[in-house]
Amino acid sequence: MDLLDEPVPGVGTYEDFNTIDWVREKSKDRDRHREIATKSKESTLALMKSISDAFSGWLLMLLVGLMAGALAGGIDISAHWMTDLKEGVCLNGFWFNHEHCCWNSNETTFQERDKCPNWKSWAELIVGTNDGPFAYIMNYLMYVCWALLFSFLAVSLVRAFAPYACGSGIPEIKTILSGFIIRGYLGKWTLMIKTITLVLAVSSGLSLGKEGPLVHVACCCGNILCHLFTKYRRNEAKRREVLSAAAAVGVSVAFGAPIGGVLFSLEEVSYYFPLKTLWRSFFAALVAAFTLRSINPFGNSRLVLFYVEFHSPWHLLELIPFILLGIFGGIWGAFFIRANIAWCRRRKTTRLGHYPVLEVLVVTAVTALLAFPNSYTRMSTSELISELFNDCGLLDSSQLCNYANVSVTKISSDALPDRPAGPDVYTAMWQLSLALVFKMLITVVTFGMKVPSGLFIPSMAVGAIAGRGWCSPGADCITPGLYAMVGAAACLGGVTRMTVSLVVIMFELTGGLEYIVPLMAATMTSKWVADALGREGIYEAHIRLNGYPFLESKEEFSHKTLAMDVMRPRRSDPPLSVITQDGMSVEEVESLIAETSYSGFPVVVSHESQRLVGFVQRRDLVISIENARKRQEGVVSASRIFFTEYTPPQPPNSPPPLKLRGIMDLSPFTVTDHTAMDIVVDIFRKLGLRQCLVTHNGRLLGIITKKDILKHMAQMANRDPDSILFN
Amino acid sequence: MDLLDEPVPGVGTYEDFNTIDWVREKSKDRDRHREIATKSKESTLALMKSISDAFSGWLLMLLVGLMAGALAGGIDISAHWMTDLKEGVCLNGFWFNHEHCCWNSNETTFQERDKCPNWKSWAELIVGTNDGPFAYIMNYLMYVCWALLFSFLAVSLVRAFAPYACGSGIPEIKTILSGFIIRGYLGKWTLMIKTITLVLAVSSGLSLGKEGPLVHVACCCGNILCHLFTKYRRNEAKRREVLSAAAAVGVSVAFGAPIGGVLFSLEEVSYYFPLKTLWRSFFAALVAAFTLRSINPFGNSRLVLFYVEFHSPWHLLELIPFILLGIFGGIWGAFFIRANIAWCRRRKTTRLGHYPVLEVLVVTAVTALLAFPNSYTRMSTSELISELFNDCGLLDSSQLCNYANVSVTKISSDALPDRPAGPDVYTAMWQLSLALVFKMLITVVTFGMKVPSGLFIPSMAVGAIAGRGWCSPGADCITPGLYAMVGAAACLGGVTRMTVSLVVIMFELTGGLEYIVPLMAATMTSKWVADALGREGIYEAHIRLNGYPFLESKEEFSHKTLAMDVMRPRRSDPPLSVITQDGMSVEEVESLIAETSYSGFPVVVSHESQRLVGFVQRRDLVISIENARKRQEGVVSASRIFFTEYTPPQPPNSPPPLKLRGIMDLSPFTVTDHTAMDIVVDIFRKLGLRQCLVTHNGRLLGIITKKDILKHMAQMANRDPDSILFN
Repeated sequence: MDLLDEPVPGVGTYEDFNTIDWVREKSKDRDRHREIATKSKESTLALMKSISDAFSGWLLMLLVGLMAGALAGGIDISAHWMTDLKEGVCLNGFWFNHEHCCWNSNETTFQERDKCPNWKSWAELIVGTNDGPFAYIMNYLMYVCWALLFSFLAVSLVRAFAPYACGSGIPEIKTILSGFIIRGYLGKWTLMIKTITLVLAVSSGLSLGKEGPLVHVACCCGNILCHLFTKYRRNEAKRREVLSAAAAVGVSVAFGAPIGGVLFSLEEVSYYFPLKTLWRSFFAALVAAFTLRSINPFGNSRLVLFYVEFHSPWHLLELIPFILLGIFGGIWGAFFIRANIAWCRRRKTTRLGHYPVLEVLVVTAVTALLAFPNSYTRMSTSELISELFNDCGLLDSSQLCNYANVSVTKISSDALPDRPAGPDVYTAMWQLSLALVFKMLITVVTFGMKVPSGLFIPSMAVGAIAGRGWCSPGADCITPGLYAMVGAAACLGGVTRMTVSLVVIMFELTGGLEYIVPLMAATMTSKWVADALGREGIYEAHIRLNGYPFLESKEEFSHKTLAMDVMRPRRSDPPLSVITQDGMSVEEVESLIAETSYSGFPVVVSHESQRLVGFVQRRDLVISIENARKRQEGVVSASRIFFTEYTPPQPPNSPPPLKLRGIMDLSPFTVTDHTAMDIVVDIFRKLGLRQCLVTHNGRLLGIITKKDILKHMAQMANRDPDSILFN
Repeated sequence: MDLLDEPVPGVGTYEDFNTIDWVREKSKDRDRHREIATKSKESTLALMKSISDAFSGWLLMLLVGLMAGALAGGIDISAHWMTDLKEGVCLNGFWFNHEHCCWNSNETTFQERDKCPNWKSWAELIVGTNDGPFAYIMNYLMYVCWALLFSFLAVSLVRAFAPYACGSGIPEIKTILSGFIIRGYLGKWTLMIKTITLVLAVSSGLSLGKEGPLVHVACCCGNILCHLFTKYRRNEAKRREVLSAAAAVGVSVAFGAPIGGVLFSLEEVSYYFPLKTLWRSFFAALVAAFTLRSINPFGNSRLVLFYVEFHSPWHLLELIPFILLGIFGGIWGAFFIRANIAWCRRRKTTRLGHYPVLEVLVVTAVTALLAFPNSYTRMSTSELISELFNDCGLLDSSQLCNYANVSVTKISSDALPDRPAGPDVYTAMWQLSLALVFKMLITVVTFGMKVPSGLFIPSMAVGAIAGRGWCSPGADCITPGLYAMVGAAACLGGVTRMTVSLVVIMFELTGGLEYIVPLMAATMTSKWVADALGREGIYEAHIRLNGYPFLESKEEFSHKTLAMDVMRPRRSDPPLSVITQDGMSVEEVESLIAETSYSGFPVVVSHESQRLVGFVQRRDLVISIENARKRQEGVVSASRIFFTEYTPPQPPNSPPPLKLRGIMDLSPFTVTDHTAMDIVVDIFRKLGLRQCLVTHNGRLLGIITKKDILKHMAQMANRDPDSILFN
């Protein structure tokens, strides 16, 4: 019996921190599918199985949507409550947040909503009054203490249980979706710890958002739920389809924007996004959005994070400030990326990186100390954005809306800025300027610390303040909220280089097609300006910083090099290590494996002809030989290894041969040595290859791996090629 | 001097009805780009050129958006006017349409809007009254005559000037975008004639829509405007990027749905859709939508074709009728495709096809004769849909809204269906049922005639009638308009198999995220049901009918065949025709070209070794030899052709050699004979190949072309492989 008829366990799997072979994975899935389809004709049971297999994708999407929506709702509610806990507590029950607490008290009128008897600030609770410098200091102190407690818990939990839970996770998810394997990055521990610490980190008042990490949380849900279905558990390519959809779900619950979420996944994070996935992502994103709405964490049955309704049209001349905001966003984006990357590199290379807990505590302390005195930084960042986006109504109690002579009759919004501004507006503007500088600086050091941290919200906050600030008293703004929104889009665009998805997310927040044009103008300008100042978005920059093997699909490879310039072996190197199809013994192959560290070997007809037969993965070879030595009788070091279809008759006294044709890839990809590298890069991207063999006039000449390409690209861009760490 | 240093004109271009080589085109564009980038460092002028080159894409998008938006506006206005001309004429000026005419008259009240003194029906104009059977017959006759006149003009113009202007154009555009060349299909004559005849065909009252043809019109605009920019004129791949964006523009102006348009292009028509194109398409779609709005053809400053505003939420139980509508849509879609394809095949194969003008006139006459008596078929189909989508307001004069006991106080919509229906509602229901049967049958014979004809609107009409019909008096509908909308989406989905884009287009019509769920449920059901009854959408079916070489990217290739089963030569065939790199004379090559009809030849080291060097296109070879014989001194039949890098010294008396390495593709794609066909199909799709060479152990064995793959796929699906006509 030939033992190789049944697959050896482990053959065809990947090691951690390695790249998958998309072609092989997809081919495996098609084989599986074919088998089920063939069997389904035989019996009713098999037919049922085949139908359930076809619908398992949809079921999985439904589950991912439900789970991620529920988690997002839980995170929203807890973060809201804990943020309020820094300021005070509800007497009706400590589990009520400020807003909830005041809903229950009937005495509150609309105006005095913030002052309801049941909600006690810490000073009121401890010293009985909320007035006077002592009470202020009391509140201040409690605020800082809670913030420190939350952030300490967050960083400790991350360090103790799930180091992968820190950061926003989007750079890693992009890399994973492109075919890289990081075991545990999307596991259940990461999910649990990230969910908890995200709430803690957001509540601590650090300058970070929960939107990016929600994408990570949704992807964890997707990955964990994949284990329920063999189809997805066993196949790395199929699993990545689910993860792409999960990324869409993440943005969908973060902003209440399902279409924007799908486009985000398509534009920003996904690598392989077939149309079937588009439709399923859309389904999952909708399920998640409606789950979140039925949980109703904001208490207003609204789907979206920042609900705005503008009524006035904008004037064509206003495009000038919108474009200026775009320029500001682009410059800020480029500056932020540089500063943040420099800071993160410093963290990686100096002793700073050895004290992550201390770092988090110091940053939290500085943030809390500086944030408390300014009401715009004391409130949570998403509340701030919400306030900036909203236009002044007549009953608005916000400082920003304190314009003089508010008549009781309905005035058109056009008239609003023409009225003289009250003193509060000037105070507000002054406070906002301080908040802007503070947010800009503190976000640079915050993003990248060892706590979950997203930068959608801080970036948007910077832009929203700048936009609203443009509409300072005297400026001729029709809708100040729109300026805040355009500014937010511009800054977010500058940092992440998102385009369509950003505009669509913003469109879903307002719902008016009219406002797409300003948003588009600002986003476009911001992207151009930012691209002119630095090619990469923040996520790509972090991918590069971590040395992940990510082949960017947006950037064109623009150098005129050929495959022969990139392939190994180089001219001065020893020749390529190959295996002959019928001439090597187990011992020879084992010593070849021991001497080299290549992850695979080409199989040739003979050393002289160098005619290519196939390609064999190192891991598969090692496992198979080990397995054969253990299980297959008579296989010893002197046994010859055959990759041919038919094994020639062996001389009588020789040990039995080892047939390994089964583990050889019979269809390795080849290019000629004269192929332009831009074409090679295109092939690698589109087909998702790990390696490609190079031939010249039909003879095997060398090999190009994904790592070789990335190193070559780094070299061409005058960067350090050794920064690419993985294969 | 080596003449081959300067390119021979014609080398690298394609013949009509042939497939382009995407890899070569994209590589050419990268070369161009590299050259500009290198030059830009030399002088300021070159730098300016490089900047203008970078922005030319955006400028082109702007122009496409403006032109397509303007054309769409013109088409809307003319079609509206000519549709009304069938019924009567305006005394203020014949160029006013009915609505416009009545705006000007101050006497009309809201209720009596249809009866304004300045608008005269033909009977009023000729016999002075609108009452009595004689006047009715008069109007009837005029209606039919105008319809016949319009359709006669339409079909005659199409036949005389631009045969490509007929049909919806989407199947051909899909094929062109996948890399096929049909010269003149997107030319200026087609544009001009299609624009005019589209208006005529729509006005004639035939059961067809202008939405599909608008995509063709927009693509013509895109193609024509490409001629302004060398970057796009010279490169087939770049031009297809513009065409993809233009398709988005077409849907954007057709429905006023820019995001839906972009998704339509991505999901339905495009083949190669890089992210850069996504962003540009979005820009163009927005420009077009706003151009159309500023033309304001509907007179209501609305962007969208069917503006609806629903306020009531839907009940979870209503999902059952929505899913039933989905099933209806799916069944209708599958039935329509079968019936329409059977009819079109009959037209192609029998004598029916010889009398296109007569066919159009007969169908028009039947349509007009049957349509006039029923008010729901007499009005234009888009008006009908609009009326069905709209919910009953209290002041509505529509028959459908004639419910008894309409109280003056605002009643919640829930209560509406509970009120007893008036007699008009029953009449309306009866008329709608007749209209449904009529539309279903007449559309089958209409789509595919030699006039511009889209089927978005007729399909939506069928669905809308069915949906509204579900809400017959007694049924428990909260929002009857929503049922019409869901029905329309279901039927359109069944016919075209659109998914995400359809839901997003419908979402953009209503603007409420709430209604996505019903739309999605219906669309999903409809697609599943329709797919179960027949694999292909209407566009794919028409592509198949016409034998275009289109490699569907949505369908998985699921058979377990290998490259060696598909490649030519087959086992019994003579061996592959190859050219040796240094051994053949001009005469030998010419006779090889004359004896075979292959569109290209592999170049090998020698016949014995069969080691592959490169691939040379037949067209390039023919042109180059012809050119050399004319221009290069001494090249005669006995001259030897060299594809090698260095030409060995020739014996003294021999004629000068012909060096053709320049036209050889040095990096032909190869696969091994053991490569599974699903992988080969994947490579062809993703890289856009024309052909691929097959090797075995490093020796050239055969070739697989796109046509071979399509023939193989047809064979595996038990279809006639000879239905694939082009390469």
